[in-house]
Amino acid sequence: MPKISNRGSEMPASPIRKLVPYAEEAKERGTHVIHLNIGQPDIFTPEVALDAVRNLTDKVIEYSHSAGNETYRRKLASYYQSIGINVDHTELLITTGGSEALTFAFLSCLNPGDEVIIPEPFYANYNGFATSAGIKIVPVTSTIDNGFALPPVSDFEKLITSRTKGIVICNPNNPTGYLYSKSEMEEMRELVLKHDLFFFSDEVYREFCYDEHKHLSVMHLKGLEEHAVMFDSVSKRFSECGVRIGALVSKNKKLIETALKFGQARLSPPGLGQIVGEASLDTPLEYFTSVYKEYIQRRDFLVENLNKIPGVVCPMPKGAFYTMVKLPVDDSDKFCQWILSDFEFEGKTVMMAPGSGFYSTPGNGKNEVRIAYVLNREELANAIEVLRVALEAYPGRVSE
Amino acid sequence: MPKISNRGSEMPASPIRKLVPYAEEAKERGTHVIHLNIGQPDIFTPEVALDAVRNLTDKVIEYSHSAGNETYRRKLASYYQSIGINVDHTELLITTGGSEALTFAFLSCLNPGDEVIIPEPFYANYNGFATSAGIKIVPVTSTIDNGFALPPVSDFEKLITSRTKGIVICNPNNPTGYLYSKSEMEEMRELVLKHDLFFFSDEVYREFCYDEHKHLSVMHLKGLEEHAVMFDSVSKRFSECGVRIGALVSKNKKLIETALKFGQARLSPPGLGQIVGEASLDTPLEYFTSVYKEYIQRRDFLVENLNKIPGVVCPMPKGAFYTMVKLPVDDSDKFCQWILSDFEFEGKTVMMAPGSGFYSTPGNGKNEVRIAYVLNREELANAIEVLRVALEAYPGRVSE
Ligand SMILES: Cc1ncc(COP(=O)(O)O)c(C=O)c1O
Ligand SMILES: Cc1ncc(COP(=O)(O)O)c(C=O)c1O
Repeated sequence: MPKISNRGSEMPASPIRKLVPYAEEAKERGTHVIHLNIGQPDIFTPEVALDAVRNLTDKVIEYSHSAGNETYRRKLASYYQSIGINVDHTELLITTGGSEALTFAFLSCLNPGDEVIIPEPFYANYNGFATSAGIKIVPVTSTIDNGFALPPVSDFEKLITSRTKGIVICNPNNPTGYLYSKSEMEEMRELVLKHDLFFFSDEVYREFCYDEHKHLSVMHLKGLEEHAVMFDSVSKRFSECGVRIGALVSKNKKLIETALKFGQARLSPPGLGQIVGEASLDTPLEYFTSVYKEYIQRRDFLVENLNKIPGVVCPMPKGAFYTMVKLPVDDSDKFCQWILSDFEFEGKTVMMAPGSGFYSTPGNGKNEVRIAYVLNREELANAIEVLRVALEAYPGRVSE
Repeated sequence: MPKISNRGSEMPASPIRKLVPYAEEAKERGTHVIHLNIGQPDIFTPEVALDAVRNLTDKVIEYSHSAGNETYRRKLASYYQSIGINVDHTELLITTGGSEALTFAFLSCLNPGDEVIIPEPFYANYNGFATSAGIKIVPVTSTIDNGFALPPVSDFEKLITSRTKGIVICNPNNPTGYLYSKSEMEEMRELVLKHDLFFFSDEVYREFCYDEHKHLSVMHLKGLEEHAVMFDSVSKRFSECGVRIGALVSKNKKLIETALKFGQARLSPPGLGQIVGEASLDTPLEYFTSVYKEYIQRRDFLVENLNKIPGVVCPMPKGAFYTMVKLPVDDSDKFCQWILSDFEFEGKTVMMAPGSGFYSTPGNGKNEVRIAYVLNREELANAIEVLRVALEAYPGRVSE
C-alpha cells in the first residue's frame, strides 16, 4: 500500500475539527448549538451581485484570462485608487479566494525552508498554506494585555535569519480584531526596508474598521513598491464567501509575473464568481453603512457583556468581526469540548474556537478562545448567557 | 529589492505564451487568427446547468463544506456507480477544477524531490503542478509511429527509483487523443502493484471516446483500491471550463482524508460552480449524443484532410479533442511563430501549440504540433487550407 507524504501527514487540521463530532452529538441530543466559531457572516450578499448571475446570458461558461477578466481587474483597480491605493489592472491578479493569493505569494517569494515572521495569534490556515509551500512560520507573540498590539520591532529583529523572506500581518486582524496604527505600520516599513523583506498584508477585513479608526493598507506606505504585497477577498466584504474570489496586489512587477505563471497552470479563477465580484463593486454605499452599524452593535453588545462575566477579559476589537477572549479556565481546548459534550443551558450550548489553534508557540492561547460575532444580537445574548453559566459550572475553572 | 523564489523563476510558462504577442500583432494587422491552440470548446453549456444559476434563490453565498456540498457529492457518486465505478460520496472530494485535484494529490502523496513517471507528450500544466509541489516528472517517451500507444512496461520499469511514488496517465489523452486499451491498463495495474506505486489517472476527457472504443477507468481495475487515484472535471464534459469544478476520487481513505486537509485550508470549492456542476448531472442524453456527433465529424474531417497534405502525419485520435500532428518542418516552435508573424493566406492564419511544450525530454516534439478540434467545420476547413499553403511557403520546410 503506497504511503501518504510527510507533508500530508504534517498538514494541520482545522483548529475546530476535533470539536465537530461533539457539536454533532450535541445537535443529535436536541441541543441548540450556537456557532461562535466560524467566520461565515449571516449578512445578505448585495442584490446587485446576485442579480448579475441571475441575469446570466452566456451560452458557454468559458475559461477566463488566468489573471482574471480584464474588465473586472480594471474596475477593481479603480476601487483601489478610490481608497488611495495607486495600482492599475496589471498590478493585480484575481485569485480563487484570498486563500489562493496567499499560496501564490508564498510559492513565488519563498523557497522551501524559507521563513516568514507572523505575529501570533494568527489565522490558523496560514499553517496549511505554509505546509503546502514547504515554508516555515516563525511566530512573534502579541498579548491580550495590550489588546494584541504589534510586538516591539526588536522582537521581530531577533527572529530574522538568512532564511527570513518576509513578514505577514493581517490587518484588521483575524483572530484578534486588532487594527495596526499608522506608527506601527511605519515601524514595519522601516524594518522590511532595512532587511529587504517582503511585507505581506492580509487585508480581507479592510471594510470592517470601527469607531474613528482608519485602515492603513500596506499599499499606502511610501517606498515599498517592491516589498508590499496585499491579499484581498470578496468573501467578507460582500458576504460572498462561497464565490471564491480574491486578489493578489503588488507593484512588484516580477512578483505579479511570477504569480501569474502559477495562475496559468491552474487556468483561471472561478468565472461565475468573477461576475459576482465585478458586479459587487456597484454595491450602494447604504449596504456598507447598514452592515457597519450591525457589526458595531454586535461588537459593543458582545464585548460589554463578556467583560461582565467574572474572570473574562475581552479587549475592544477595532476591526474585523472576531475577538480573542481570555477565559478563567485551565485549558480552553478542554473547555470548548466540555461545553459541547457535558453542558447545556436551557437547551443551548456554544461552539467556540480554542485559542491554541491560532498560536504556533506551544502552550500559548490555552486560556483564550476566539469568538466571531457574525450572529444576530439575540443569538449573541443567548451565547453569552450560556457561556456565563458554563464558566460557573466548569470543573476546570481557575481563578486568575 | 527582495528576490523571487527559485521555484518561481523555474515555474514554466504556458507553451503558447511566447506566441501570444505574435498572434496579437497578426490580429492588429487585420489577419483572422484561427485558434487551434486551445482546449476551450465552442459547445454550449447544458441549459439545465445555466438555469440552475439563473434561478438562484440564495440570499447569502456561503462557504460550502470543504469536500464540496454533500448533495453534489452523493449525486456524483451515483453517476460514477452508473458507469461501473464503485465509490460513495466519502470517496471523492469536489475540487476547484481538475487542476486542484492534481495539486492535492501531488501534495498528499509525494514529498519534495519525489518522482512520478508520465508518458510524454503530456498535458503541459503537469509541469507547473510539479514545480509547485516540488516534485519531479520523469518522462517515458511514446511515439507517433504507433499512435502514441503506451510505451512498453520495461521502459517504465527502467525509470523506477526509490523516489518514484507513482505513474500518471491521461486517458483519453491530451495532447495525443490516445485511449489506453484494456491490456495496456492491465499491464499498468501489474506494474503499480509490483512496485507499490500510486496510479494517478487524469480522466477529464472520459466522455470523449470515439468509434467503438470503450473507456476503462483506473477505478475499474481490480485490486487497486489503495493505489488508484482519479482526476475528473466538469470543464470538458459539460463545456463548463469557467466554473472551475473538478473532483479527486479514490478508495484510499487515508489519501482522501489527507487531501481534505489541503481542502480545508482553502476553505471550499466554488459555490456557484458546484450548483452548476450538480445540475449538470441531469443533462439529457441527447446533449451528449449531439456533442459526440459533432466531435466525430470534426475529427474525421480534420484527420482526413491533414493527412492529405504532403509530409503531414496525423494518427486517428480515439478520444479527447486534440491530436499531435507531425509536420515537415525544421522546428515547430519556429514554424508556429512564423505562420503568425510572416504568413497569411486569404487574410487568415492559424495558431497552434508547438510540440516541444508537451515533452520533458529536450529535443522531443520539434516536428510536432498539437491541434485542438474545438471549432466548427468551416473554421477547420479554413485552418487546414492555411496550413497546407503555409507548409509550401515555409523556408524551414524539410523533406522526410
Ligand atoms: C485572515 C483571513 N485571510 C484569508 C482568508 C481567506 O478567505 P477567502 O479565501 O475566502 O478569501 C480568511 C477567511 O476567513 C481570513 O480570515
Ligand atoms: C489533461 C487535462 N487535465 C486537466 C485539465 C484541467 O482542467 P480543469 O482544471 O479545467 O478541470 C485539463 C484542461 O485542459 C486537461 O487538458
